[in-house]
Amino acid sequence: MVSDSSLVGLVCAGSAIGLATAAWFASQVAAVKLNNDGEVNSRTPILAQDRGHVQGGHDGKDDEFHLNVEQISTYIAEGANAFLYQEYRIVSIFIFFFGLLLFFLLGGTTHDWGRSALTTVAFIAGSVTSIVCGFIGMRIAVFTNSRTAISAQAGVADGRGYEFAFDTAFKGGAVMGFALVSIGLIVLFVLICVYHLYWTEAFATSDNNAKATRAMFEAIAGYGLGGSSIALFGRVGGGIYTKAADVGADLAGKVEAGLREDDPRNPAVIADNVGDNVGDIAGMGADLFGSFAESSCAAMVISSQSELYTNWPAMLFPLAITASGILVCLATTFVATHIMKTMTQKDIEPSLKRQLLVSTVLMTPVIFALCYSFFPSTFSVSTATNVKNYHIFFCVTAGLWAGLIIGYTTEYYTSHSYTPVREVAGSCATGAATNIIYGLALGYKSVIIPVFCLAITIYVGLKLAGMYGIAVSALGILSTLAVGLTIDGYGPICDNAGGIAEMSGMPEEVRDVTDALDAAGNTTAAIGKGFAIGSAALVSLALFGAYVTIVDLTAAGVNLLEPFQFGGVLIGGMLPYWFSAMTMKSVGKAALDMVQEVRRQFADAPVDANGNKDFSKFQADYKTCVAISTAASLREMLAPGALVMLTPIIMGFFFGTRALAGTLAGALVSGVQIAISASNTGGAWDNAKKYIEAGGIPGERKGGNVHKAAVVGDTVGDPLKDTSGPSLNILIKLMAIISVVFGPSFPALGNAIFERLIA
Amino acid sequence: MVSDSSLVGLVCAGSAIGLATAAWFASQVAAVKLNNDGEVNSRTPILAQDRGHVQGGHDGKDDEFHLNVEQISTYIAEGANAFLYQEYRIVSIFIFFFGLLLFFLLGGTTHDWGRSALTTVAFIAGSVTSIVCGFIGMRIAVFTNSRTAISAQAGVADGRGYEFAFDTAFKGGAVMGFALVSIGLIVLFVLICVYHLYWTEAFATSDNNAKATRAMFEAIAGYGLGGSSIALFGRVGGGIYTKAADVGADLAGKVEAGLREDDPRNPAVIADNVGDNVGDIAGMGADLFGSFAESSCAAMVISSQSELYTNWPAMLFPLAITASGILVCLATTFVATHIMKTMTQKDIEPSLKRQLLVSTVLMTPVIFALCYSFFPSTFSVSTATNVKNYHIFFCVTAGLWAGLIIGYTTEYYTSHSYTPVREVAGSCATGAATNIIYGLALGYKSVIIPVFCLAITIYVGLKLAGMYGIAVSALGILSTLAVGLTIDGYGPICDNAGGIAEMSGMPEEVRDVTDALDAAGNTTAAIGKGFAIGSAALVSLALFGAYVTIVDLTAAGVNLLEPFQFGGVLIGGMLPYWFSAMTMKSVGKAALDMVQEVRRQFADAPVDANGNKDFSKFQADYKTCVAISTAASLREMLAPGALVMLTPIIMGFFFGTRALAGTLAGALVSGVQIAISASNTGGAWDNAKKYIEAGGIPGERKGGNVHKAAVVGDTVGDPLKDTSGPSLNILIKLMAIISVVFGPSFPALGNAIFERLIA
Repeated sequence: MVSDSSLVGLVCAGSAIGLATAAWFASQVAAVKLNNDGEVNSRTPILAQDRGHVQGGHDGKDDEFHLNVEQISTYIAEGANAFLYQEYRIVSIFIFFFGLLLFFLLGGTTHDWGRSALTTVAFIAGSVTSIVCGFIGMRIAVFTNSRTAISAQAGVADGRGYEFAFDTAFKGGAVMGFALVSIGLIVLFVLICVYHLYWTEAFATSDNNAKATRAMFEAIAGYGLGGSSIALFGRVGGGIYTKAADVGADLAGKVEAGLREDDPRNPAVIADNVGDNVGDIAGMGADLFGSFAESSCAAMVISSQSELYTNWPAMLFPLAITASGILVCLATTFVATHIMKTMTQKDIEPSLKRQLLVSTVLMTPVIFALCYSFFPSTFSVSTATNVKNYHIFFCVTAGLWAGLIIGYTTEYYTSHSYTPVREVAGSCATGAATNIIYGLALGYKSVIIPVFCLAITIYVGLKLAGMYGIAVSALGILSTLAVGLTIDGYGPICDNAGGIAEMSGMPEEVRDVTDALDAAGNTTAAIGKGFAIGSAALVSLALFGAYVTIVDLTAAGVNLLEPFQFGGVLIGGMLPYWFSAMTMKSVGKAALDMVQEVRRQFADAPVDANGNKDFSKFQADYKTCVAISTAASLREMLAPGALVMLTPIIMGFFFGTRALAGTLAGALVSGVQIAISASNTGGAWDNAKKYIEAGGIPGERKGGNVHKAAVVGDTVGDPLKDTSGPSLNILIKLMAIISVVFGPSFPALGNAIFERLIA
Repeated sequence: MVSDSSLVGLVCAGSAIGLATAAWFASQVAAVKLNNDGEVNSRTPILAQDRGHVQGGHDGKDDEFHLNVEQISTYIAEGANAFLYQEYRIVSIFIFFFGLLLFFLLGGTTHDWGRSALTTVAFIAGSVTSIVCGFIGMRIAVFTNSRTAISAQAGVADGRGYEFAFDTAFKGGAVMGFALVSIGLIVLFVLICVYHLYWTEAFATSDNNAKATRAMFEAIAGYGLGGSSIALFGRVGGGIYTKAADVGADLAGKVEAGLREDDPRNPAVIADNVGDNVGDIAGMGADLFGSFAESSCAAMVISSQSELYTNWPAMLFPLAITASGILVCLATTFVATHIMKTMTQKDIEPSLKRQLLVSTVLMTPVIFALCYSFFPSTFSVSTATNVKNYHIFFCVTAGLWAGLIIGYTTEYYTSHSYTPVREVAGSCATGAATNIIYGLALGYKSVIIPVFCLAITIYVGLKLAGMYGIAVSALGILSTLAVGLTIDGYGPICDNAGGIAEMSGMPEEVRDVTDALDAAGNTTAAIGKGFAIGSAALVSLALFGAYVTIVDLTAAGVNLLEPFQFGGVLIGGMLPYWFSAMTMKSVGKAALDMVQEVRRQFADAPVDANGNKDFSKFQADYKTCVAISTAASLREMLAPGALVMLTPIIMGFFFGTRALAGTLAGALVSGVQIAISASNTGGAWDNAKKYIEAGGIPGERKGGNVHKAAVVGDTVGDPLKDTSGPSLNILIKLMAIISVVFGPSFPALGNAIFERLIA
């Protein structure tokens, strides 16, 4: 069995190497210069030949107005910062008050003020780590996007083709991936070490060491709560932001004023580009960071309540998996960037998809080795006795491979390379209505395989190692997180790069390169969403396991035949619908704000001799649009956020631990299905539209009736796939972690308030 | 306590009075003569003055082609018969083979061939009863529709206004309502009497009388299975039929050929009118008959396994509720038809809604009296001990009033008198996409109150009387079934009457009357759907209770922390999505068949001198369209039907009783939510369109862009509200009753097949 020092070594090495990798990739991206007025860099040889597009203004060739790349980059960065500062201001207030609530509610009910304080500190640590990771991700993304556009231009000019731009975008994504996982890991490890010292001091002579360890890890769960709370703001707020800006820009700019996509005269265009980063970088990053923190906490809470509690290597197995995962992802990335190069357009998508496969394959034997090194040959944990160390291997591997299959299934249902999306595209021939019907049916159907994968994983986990098996299977799906995040980050970077190429008036060929990179990004974004939902399902089930362990329901079970449990399941199953209704309408309202602002700005546009609007002299005010999107998203986030955060607290205190257990299970079961179907329906509509644009339906072109029908689907799909669908991940996880953190309070109260009232 | 003979008296009186009421209303409807060539009837004085429209043909006033009312009536009746005969042919084959499967599987596993035979007989009795009821409903509906049109014409001519037509349509609906409940009740009662005799013969001297009674009621559950199996064909097949015809007629006739709604030259128009009867009369009737049969069986199965088994009045309490319900509904109907008359347009909707309220109010004290008469003051049943007779009153009443609230909530979300639908209509201003987004959000939101109602009912039921409480609350919601069915039947009759008025070229004012009647019917149809889903949820939970009682899971419970249970819940939660995906695509395919046939017929239309199609001489071939809709619906029904029927059998035999329990719970929780949201979304879109047509949005009219956006929503909503949504009722109920009927087989096998394989 491994000794404590090799565990410490593995975790520290993993974090350090991960951070170093991130720093190295960041330096590579930074080597691409936006403006070569200074020294000429070896990586940007072409820019001197093509000053016009870099400097902006009217280039004389056509009537189009262009911006300078640096300008655009600055606008986007400023917009992103404006959002982040606003968000973090609100988040700080939230952290302060929720921290107080947590401290006093937990302390007041359990009368264990020490643990309550440590839980609150862990909550703050988790929140701050999530904020820092989100900030780094956003900064690197808005730093990389313009550099990707420049790289594409350079690649076109010097014949390096797609390689250079792909490389830049990929490395930008990798910075976020490796930095986030490494920082998350090291902060959690430091927290555990510090708390362990505190606890050792306090309980070294105590004969109640088991209880102390248990309480310590219950306090550590605050870290997961912090991570997930920030994810709520990131995913929900970000999701509303990105779609409000997108829909607003489309409706007012494209449809009403007749501007093209990413036209710099559209005041909402910068907000639209900022939105891609806010939603898909900060939101997705916070979501997956939350999953990592929560699954680690869930596993440790469960194992701390078993005979493993004195076995530190086994207790900290979650950290070992994550640390090894960083190293495996580094090896995978090396394969992608150095061995199998991405030279042509056809290489892009397979190259990204191969990353997932390679990392999964490499991770499998590593997990085997870890399980044999860290666990005793036979032990008891959760409700399972006689657990062998290879049982844990099966559980982790089930999660790991389930994630891959779910990701690939998502791709099958959302990529226009396969039948389902082509059928949806074909249904546009009979109008928007059939497109919607076929799209909804596709989303419903796409749930089948992922649910079977999850059910099998859950069966394996529960059968072999009880709720601990579920927790480690969640760790399995997240073990290759650095690669997953790299690919997730790649998408919005390329999307932005395309926008920048368009706004700065780069030649058609450059735009072709960025479009090809972006198209692959859409597919991987769909895979990433599937992956995020799958992991969220396992994580929240693991947290459910931790919750029932904490509130001592393990022995009695969560019996569906009892009134509170079944009522809870039914109400829990309804929550994702309530939440989706809120978020979908929020997008509508926020988009309307944006439309009105764009209309207002256009109303002030200069008028030419004939009395027509002269957009060539129009100077858009991007900042107001960014401010509107920011304000609307933060305002609209409050109600759904309150629903998610207050429900478990109210349920627990008013109706007791059993009603809450039912609610969590119901929300999980119903949330997973809606999240998968909403994401895939939206993705399929998006790609059906792209398929028609790419000439997939003979005789049909952009702007025709069939294309118009496809656009309706795409617009409906936007809030489904980017707001309500992915936000459900947060709903199911956050409700579960809140239940875990407040768990010790509920039984401490004795009977729930409702039971006292009717008694 | 009541004696057996008063129970027998109550049941017989209820059935007899119900049947007499149905017969009397039928004679009233028949008194409206379609063609007054013979004697002039006092109820149809106006027809002689208005021969033109009755005889059909071109009336010279305009270019429109009209049919004779009798002709149309005959076409619709023939179409309906053609469908029914085809369906019943397939259903007979199904009954035969499924009956064999049931007999041999149940007998072979339990080695109790006597019980197996009785179960099979009960299954056949239930199927045949459902078929007979569906047949009566269809016959009376296609008999009443043309008479309603004639009544409207007469009312316009002689100044009786809406009263006469409303009266005719309402009475037509009432025939179905009273006949169905009475026949269902008497057949079930006879079955119980006969089986009781058999059992008394077989077990009179047995010391195992409890087990015999238990087995007898398990056999009776076959009656519910029969009813629900036919409902599968009615709801799913009927749902596909009606929407395929509707969408096909709209796309090919209205959109492509530019014909108006219900134009007799549209070959699909008869199929469309037949469809209303097939889906909303036969389908809805079979669905609710199934609910009645299943909830009665569930209550009796559960109580037979308690100390009540020797207490026949208490055992047969479900029949007493239904019998009393018939009498209460008769009183309610008397109020509607004789005390509060429906004279003006404004009266129509309140008059129908009042029916529900009046019957609910009248039923409440009756339930109280029944509970005090039929139950001992204290007893044990299911998992509950120390149950008081007034506890049962609370359970039944909770169900009864939950049904009313759910119905009214549904109305709030689907009627354009209230904010939600008006908001959806307003969202059409920014196009079809926002209409779809707002509509979906409305549907999601509409789930909240019904789920709270159901959760409270379930809590009350389980808390006070265990699973028996749930079963009697389901009886509560169904106690006013005769009124519910009357109102459900009223809608399609008026819809058809409108079509007949249009096709026979009746004057504008007549069409106004039928439109007003139909509009009220849309609202009540929405209420009826909410009611049907709410009852289905309680019924399937009651059956779930019966199932866990039969397979002896009551003591161990259905523990969500165990692998098979949670996996089952997750897979069960996915089934409604899979099923909806199937049925929605089926509608698409069947509609496409219809479109192609209409196009083929139009291609053969005569051509005038200028080479344009001359539709004035075109003679549509309705029969082929009816045949296509029939064939397509019956073909497309097989796959979703197989999914519903085979899943519980496979789950039970392969993965055991606990996995199946999880699956049932998951399907119930997820199915209820999707069913409610799908139905309400569809209803809201339909009425948002009607609101715009009625001038609800100033400056917008039929055919404008806003109206076009609304039409997209309406078309998407059609399969949601009339096919996939209501079919989910059947999914959750049928899976549960199959589990109940096959329940004795699963434990008899010992371990499930999967457990043997991995052992």
